[in-house]
This record gives sequence, structure tokens and C-alpha cells, in this order.
Amino acid sequence: MNEASTGDATRAEPAWRPVSRSRAYELVVDRIEEQIVNGALRVGDHLPPERELASWLEVSRAAVREAIRTLEAHGVVSSSVGSGKGAGTVVTALTSGALTRMLRLHVALTSFPLVDVIEARVMLERTSAALAARAASAEDLELMRSLVDAMDDPALSREEFNEFDTRFHVAIAEAAGNRLVADMTIAIRESMKHRVLAGFRGAPDWPATSEVLRGHHRGIMEAVEARRGESAADLVEEHIRYAFAHLPGFRSGGD
Amino acid sequence: MNEASTGDATRAEPAWRPVSRSRAYELVVDRIEEQIVNGALRVGDHLPPERELASWLEVSRAAVREAIRTLEAHGVVSSSVGSGKGAGTVVTALTSGALTRMLRLHVALTSFPLVDVIEARVMLERTSAALAARAASAEDLELMRSLVDAMDDPALSREEFNEFDTRFHVAIAEAAGNRLVADMTIAIRESMKHRVLAGFRGAPDWPATSEVLRGHHRGIMEAVEARRGESAADLVEEHIRYAFAHLPGFRSGGD
Repeated sequence: MNEASTGDATRAEPAWRPVSRSRAYELVVDRIEEQIVNGALRVGDHLPPERELASWLEVSRAAVREAIRTLEAHGVVSSSVGSGKGAGTVVTALTSGALTRMLRLHVALTSFPLVDVIEARVMLERTSAALAARAASAEDLELMRSLVDAMDDPALSREEFNEFDTRFHVAIAEAAGNRLVADMTIAIRESMKHRVLAGFRGAPDWPATSEVLRGHHRGIMEAVEARRGESAADLVEEHIRYAFAHLPGFRSGGD
Repeated sequence: MNEASTGDATRAEPAWRPVSRSRAYELVVDRIEEQIVNGALRVGDHLPPERELASWLEVSRAAVREAIRTLEAHGVVSSSVGSGKGAGTVVTALTSGALTRMLRLHVALTSFPLVDVIEARVMLERTSAALAARAASAEDLELMRSLVDAMDDPALSREEFNEFDTRFHVAIAEAAGNRLVADMTIAIRESMKHRVLAGFRGAPDWPATSEVLRGHHRGIMEAVEARRGESAADLVEEHIRYAFAHLPGFRSGGD
């Protein structure tokens, strides 16, 4: 299963990894995240004052301050100064775009085997296509069609083709009407964008390859338009597996 | 589709949201993340020196320093002082545990409609169960069986039952042999842990409800053990939909 890797398996671990992974402020971050995941702290809630947190958790106030700065950097809390009712540190809502961004970054930096990423993409895009066949609006369908039509232009560079290709897959995910599934689908498709482009660049017969991909895209779009969810899911899976098997960047596991 | 929400729809947005979302250091963070997602910066690569980054991006060195501190807080880069070959700021590999943690936090803090979270969970756990039926080792099966057996104890509190229940679903995801799918499955299952517990607590006839859940778990485990992937996937979907329909915390969309 794991012969191919998104990382470079031959490269040694960097020697300058931090030796201590559990500094005091990290433990404070853990505790606060725990309260959020448990549902004890919810969006809009205030964190306890710095002095109390420090005393309960038996750490220094500096550690609490550092933890709060870290959580602010993650967008998990925001602080405001002053003495009014709104002053203090408050748990903030994350946008769905923040999830896509974080997930895309994680997929880029975690050495998941390439085959695992492909299988995850098949799962997500099958579900997105099936849901889109049920939920796509007239505007969604129009956007998909305009992207499929745009890819027909033989003068497109491989970079431009890749741009429209990415946007087509994102459009299906957006049309699915499930924000969480869409965010995960978009993150994984976008995390593969540069590998897909490397595959396009390395394709020995790009006109022939792009012709096949254009046919796939049109077939997926027509199945979504015809509200044939199972067929849309099968076609998108076939499309992803075709690219995986035929584009050089994927085949070799490198890029 | 969207009548239920994981957030509290009646609660107003906090009034103290930051007004400026694009401070200079955030733009620097964006640029660095972009290079990582594009594959131009890979694990083990050094960031350019602070002075050069500041000059290329036309920001102050203080903004670059703040950006690097933020990325350190995310675990994306690590810095080491000194003048040797390893000194400087290096892109670091994220652990797969870090993905689960971030995703769990995001699901807790982003107001995804509950029905979207349930459908995402059905998708992920169907895939995990089907893969586990193919890939589970003897040790994986033994762990699943011991968790199913542990849930038979009538003296278990609802908290203890929930703990074993969560571990059973995590065990299936771990047995699937696809790290990325497993991380996403575990994150979403764990993000629902407190809602599931609230559902157990609110169940009007807990002995009867837990009896049904025990039967589901045993059926899923036996299907995985018998290598019947499609059947394992169907049973886990039925189990999740049963809980969604019957546990009070889910039905009302609150907790």
C-alpha cells in the first residue's frame, strides 16, 4: 500500500528538531483546546483571567500569556484591551476557509503516503459529486459548464488548464451543499495542484492527455446536470484514478 | 438541510472582533504558506534570512519576526540559533496527530450545520470500515473485540461507555491502514464525543439504548472480522444514523 510517499523518504530527519516538546505554554494551550473540544468553552465565551488560569494550571503568568498569543495566532481566541464588558480574551469562531487553509498546509507538510492522499481524494470527490448531483443549483451548473468550456480552448497553457481544472473540482465540491465535506475536498484537491501541474508538464503527449481529461470533465458535468449521482461519483473516481495512473508526477511518487 | 447547527444560532456575534484582519505579519504568513503548498518550500528547507524576506516582501523585519513566531506556534517551522549549518529557520514535518488535533478544534469552532458533520462522519466511517475489513491485522481485530466486550459490562457508567465507544470507532479508523482518512475520521468522531455523551445522559431508557448500540458494535466488528467490507460500511452507517435519530442531543441539534 505504502510504496509511494508524498514526502521524500530518502531525506533524513532534520537534526535541529526541538528537544523539548512540552514547554509550559504548550501544556496551557492543550488544556484550553481540551475545554473547547469538550464543549466547556464555546464561541463567544471569555477565558478566565490570566492570574486565575496561571494559578489553576500551576504555571507562570508568562506561560499563560504565551499560550494565549499562540491561540491568537491560530485564530482560536482574540483579545481586546480595556475594562468594559467585552474586554478580555474571547473564544472566536473560525471561518470555513480557515479549515481549508489549515488542512491544505497539513497535507503538504505531513508525509502521508501518496496512495493514501489519492484514496482520500477519491472518497471525498465521490461524495461531493453524488451530493452535487442532488443539490447543484442552476448557477452551480452554469459555473461548471463555463469551466468545462474554458478547458476546450486549445491555446491554453498547461498552467491555465490546471487552474480551470482545479476550479472545476472546487465548483463540484461547492455545489454539494455540505460545507465540511466541501472544505476537506477543496483542501485535498488544492494540496495536489502543484503535483498535478508537474504531471501536466511531464506528460509526453499533452494534446492527447488533455483531450482525455476534457472528456472526463464533460462526462462528470453532464452526470451532475442529469442528477445521476452514482454515475457522477463513478466518473469522478475513474478520472482521478486515470490521472494517478497516467501523469508522470503521480506515477513516480515524486514531483 | 440546515435546520440544525453545531453553533448556537441564537447567540449574537461577539462585538469585539478584530477590525483589521490583514496585518503585515499575516501577509508574510500567507506568502510562506503559499510557498509550502506550492511545493517550493519543503520539509527540511531553510527559510531565507529575515533581512532578505523583509526586503522581498516589502515589510519590516519586525513583521517577518512576528510571522515566523506565528508559524512556529503552528509547528510549521522551527528556529535554532547559532551560526552552524543547521542554524536558522527550517520548515518542519507535522505529525499526523497534529492534523487530528487541528481538525477536531476546527470542527468544534466552525459553525458547520450538524447534519453536515453527520454526513461527513458517515462518509469517513463507511470508508474506514470498508478499508479495515481489507487491512485489519490480528492485533487490530483483538483490540476491537476487547472494546466490544468491555461495553457489555452492565455496571459501566455512561461516561465509561462513551469512552470505549469512542475508542472502538478510533480502532476501526486505525485499522484501515490509510493515515489521512484515519486522521480525519478520528478528528470528527472525537469532536462529537461530548455531544454523544450528552445524548447518552439524556436518553430516557439508557439500558435499552445501550443494548441497541452494543448490538451495532458487535455486528460491525464481526463484519470487519469476516472481511465483508460493504456490509461493515452499511452497518456503521446504520449505527451512526440510528444514534443521530435517537439520541436527544443530536435530535434537538443542541447539547
